[in-house]
Amino acid sequence: MLKTDIGYTSIDEIKVRGLNLATEIIGKFDFVDMIFHTVLARAPSAREKVMVNALLVTTADHGITPSSLSARLTYAGAPEALQGAVAAGLLGAGSVFLGTMQNAAEMLIAAARELPADAGDEAVREAARAVVAQYRRERRAIYGLGHPIHVNGDPRVPSLRELSRANGYYGLHWRLMEAIGDALAGELNKKLPLNAVGAIAAIVAAMGLDPLIARGLSLVGRSAGLLAHLVEEQRAPIATEAWKVVLRQDPRNELP
Amino acid sequence: MLKTDIGYTSIDEIKVRGLNLATEIIGKFDFVDMIFHTVLARAPSAREKVMVNALLVTTADHGITPSSLSARLTYAGAPEALQGAVAAGLLGAGSVFLGTMQNAAEMLIAAARELPADAGDEAVREAARAVVAQYRRERRAIYGLGHPIHVNGDPRVPSLRELSRANGYYGLHWRLMEAIGDALAGELNKKLPLNAVGAIAAIVAAMGLDPLIARGLSLVGRSAGLLAHLVEEQRAPIATEAWKVVLRQDPRNELP
Amino acid sequence: MLKTDIGYTSIDEIKVRGLNLATEIIGKFDFVDMIFHTVLARAPSAREKVMVNALLVTTADHGITPSSLSARLTYAGAPEALQGAVAAGLLGAGSVFLGTMQNAAEMLIAAARELPADAGDEAVREAARAVVAQYRRERRAIYGLGHPIHVNGDPRVPSLRELSRANGYYGLHWRLMEAIGDALAGELNKKLPLNAVGAIAAIVAAMGLDPLIARGLSLVGRSAGLLAHLVEEQRAPIATEAWKVVLRQDPRNELP
Amino acid sequence: MLKTDIGYTSIDEIKVRGLNLATEIIGKFDFVDMIFHTVLARAPSAREKVMVNALLVTTADHGITPSSLSARLTYAGAPEALQGAVAAGLLGAGSVFLGTMQNAAEMLIAAARELPADAGDEAVREAARAVVAQYRRERRAIYGLGHPIHVNGDPRVPSLRELSRANGYYGLHWRLMEAIGDALAGELNKKLPLNAVGAIAAIVAAMGLDPLIARGLSLVGRSAGLLAHLVEEQRAPIATEAWKVVLRQDPRNELP
Repeated sequence: MLKTDIGYTSIDEIKVRGLNLATEIIGKFDFVDMIFHTVLARAPSAREKVMVNALLVTTADHGITPSSLSARLTYAGAPEALQGAVAAGLLGAGSVFLGTMQNAAEMLIAAARELPADAGDEAVREAARAVVAQYRRERRAIYGLGHPIHVNGDPRVPSLRELSRANGYYGLHWRLMEAIGDALAGELNKKLPLNAVGAIAAIVAAMGLDPLIARGLSLVGRSAGLLAHLVEEQRAPIATEAWKVVLRQDPRNELP
Repeated sequence: MLKTDIGYTSIDEIKVRGLNLATEIIGKFDFVDMIFHTVLARAPSAREKVMVNALLVTTADHGITPSSLSARLTYAGAPEALQGAVAAGLLGAGSVFLGTMQNAAEMLIAAARELPADAGDEAVREAARAVVAQYRRERRAIYGLGHPIHVNGDPRVPSLRELSRANGYYGLHWRLMEAIGDALAGELNKKLPLNAVGAIAAIVAAMGLDPLIARGLSLVGRSAGLLAHLVEEQRAPIATEAWKVVLRQDPRNELP
Repeated sequence: MLKTDIGYTSIDEIKVRGLNLATEIIGKFDFVDMIFHTVLARAPSAREKVMVNALLVTTADHGITPSSLSARLTYAGAPEALQGAVAAGLLGAGSVFLGTMQNAAEMLIAAARELPADAGDEAVREAARAVVAQYRRERRAIYGLGHPIHVNGDPRVPSLRELSRANGYYGLHWRLMEAIGDALAGELNKKLPLNAVGAIAAIVAAMGLDPLIARGLSLVGRSAGLLAHLVEEQRAPIATEAWKVVLRQDPRNELP
Repeated sequence: MLKTDIGYTSIDEIKVRGLNLATEIIGKFDFVDMIFHTVLARAPSAREKVMVNALLVTTADHGITPSSLSARLTYAGAPEALQGAVAAGLLGAGSVFLGTMQNAAEMLIAAARELPADAGDEAVREAARAVVAQYRRERRAIYGLGHPIHVNGDPRVPSLRELSRANGYYGLHWRLMEAIGDALAGELNKKLPLNAVGAIAAIVAAMGLDPLIARGLSLVGRSAGLLAHLVEEQRAPIATEAWKVVLRQDPRNELP
């Protein structure tokens, strides 16, 4: 039988994971409750709610990023289709930006599986060195380290670390992520501080969530940030001007 | 100068609408606070938070919809790019499904502008008849009415109406939406109960939000529902089987 | 029965519009033959082939456009998913750029329906004035006129006009498009030369094609242009630098 | 300097790879000429044109595929945004369907690099066995083999092989692809005939094209097939019925 456990619909009722959407969910669940209910079929604990809200808030986007710029350029061409502009903004969440939370979480979960939860610092360092060696041997990227702008350290990381500590999620996965950063920095002989992707990957891994959910939550959070950009673009457009600024970098382009 | 009011980034700081993301937002704002902060540059009231959570929860999706089916089919072809599957699911939120909240809210806002907030029932009915007459004359669709499955009434509507009442958002826009439904049903001589799109449009209009935000919030809510479907598709795939079920409807297709 | 006339598949055969894909199409049809065969269920004439090739070539894209910039920004974030970058580039083909061919063609087809094919110049001018009056009354955009860069006239238009003439497609639709441009320019008292969108709309209308096909062919053509940009982006990336150029426009952004 | 070699625009001229779009390209280049000109900065040979036309034709799509079904479902929700429906259909061209041409071509190019162009059969078989062993050791998928429907062999493969032979592209890459199929089939002890992805990968590799171009051409070809489906969906819609067919597979869903 072809079915989803997420829900079904009859003429008079919509059921989502066993609850009646109209009478048991709307007005009773907030959005994070609903994410847990639909994705995980359970309610979040108070600590989980704090952390998922922090992940959504952190990934919501801030100023002009490649993803908000792409969404704005798309909106400028097709303002009647907001969904297309949001989609265009999300499509860049791949192996270089944002989507990398999934890869980093997978790396941490695999590494942590080999260690006891209370592994000593030397064991963690050794496991981190082994991860770095393996990834470099297989020519795979190690995600979660370094930042093109925040070269002295990503300012979001201390906040996310503190929040993890306060809610009981600062443990083996965070320590591994930090040790992997140290190990790679040592090998490459350059500063490679943890970035928000690495912090979020450590949080998701510590919460026992599927790494796919890390990437997924970042898409949910980012969709809100893109909405902010597009509402602004509607009122105070900058996309066309941004495009022209780029055009003008090549003096062969001539603008009236 | 080309700039966004949403935020900017320096080497050591990320500012979002005047607040420091790391020290003033993360861990302090929940997701709905962040939506208000980035989109509207202000904090939500308690009542606004209840309503926006209800909108996100209502649009999160339930069972198999055209949008979750499209997302699952896309994931089956490109599981390495979750963002593409989410985007494919959002792209159908247009003038027939979901995106119509924007159109319905625009209709209600325009109609309400002509009436005092405490307009009597007859004045509301008359305004509604005028809207229906105008839309039919211009051959424009009237959104927010009827449902292909919930033919006796959309079960989400009473819950959303109750919640609106409890939070002070049941007023002119809701009354207009309901009167427009009655007027059109009378003209077409068929049952046309309000659907969730109409209810959400009335809420968004009553809250004084830009109609674009109605569509935008439905995209944010839907992205969470799509995530639930895609996490399930990863573990218990149904997309390929669903495609084959469709193929088998045409006996000329032959499957091994 | 749920079926498409486009084709079906058995274990040993793929049929497309009645022909065997393997033995009657591959190697025998070129791409434009295949477009006609799948979309219109017939072969193109030689003149139709010339014109469709010209449409595809014209819409393929040239330098940095909002759509190629959006595709490149997306590729920079998700190089493993070329399809996402192409999709992001196509999503801006809406009511402002490119997608407007559909609207302009619809306008020309409706206006031409009221006139004999050999209508005199004055009748065409009058019909054009009526279109402009109606569109302005209904506050609808008139597409196909003016260009943000080519303020003295879109250089593609004379070539497309010449080609139309040579192939028997310069007639009522082209004349209407040109007269609409004159009428609107007269009313607004500014130069509004035909642009490529207007020329393509006239061609599509003259060929008797569904206006949806105009927009569709522009998406096919554009997908090739986007591929060129993305192959270059892979070898000589500029997207990240383009993003930084935009960031630097706001001095509050600080880059290392 | 931030620039693309693809082209630039002045007030009176559009240049694409050194040629004037209006006077040297439109009406003179057909679509495949334009693909070569924009992507590769050169004209195709007659043989190359035959092969690229065959690739575009083969990937254009036929009956209901996951990608055309996804495009149709999206169109049903947002018919005003054809670009979104085409994008949704393309987004599934990833590591399972279609996008795999890139991976298969990369595999063949790497393997062929180790062999002389006129390598004997035993050398080819040995290289194929080494590829299979390596991919299985690294738990990587080997693309281009087997088909869920065409279990006795993909009917497109003989046509593509014949065309390759006739145009001088049947050589080491094709032989490697076939030998890899035999080697894997031997190891798994099941039939694994070459599929169209494998054939196209061999062709692209033999033509010396960048593997990214293989995936890209399949997106261009597919966009035409999607257009055919969407033009049909506009006139004779099946998407909503297809969705309901899927819904009805779960008896808990109740439809009026």
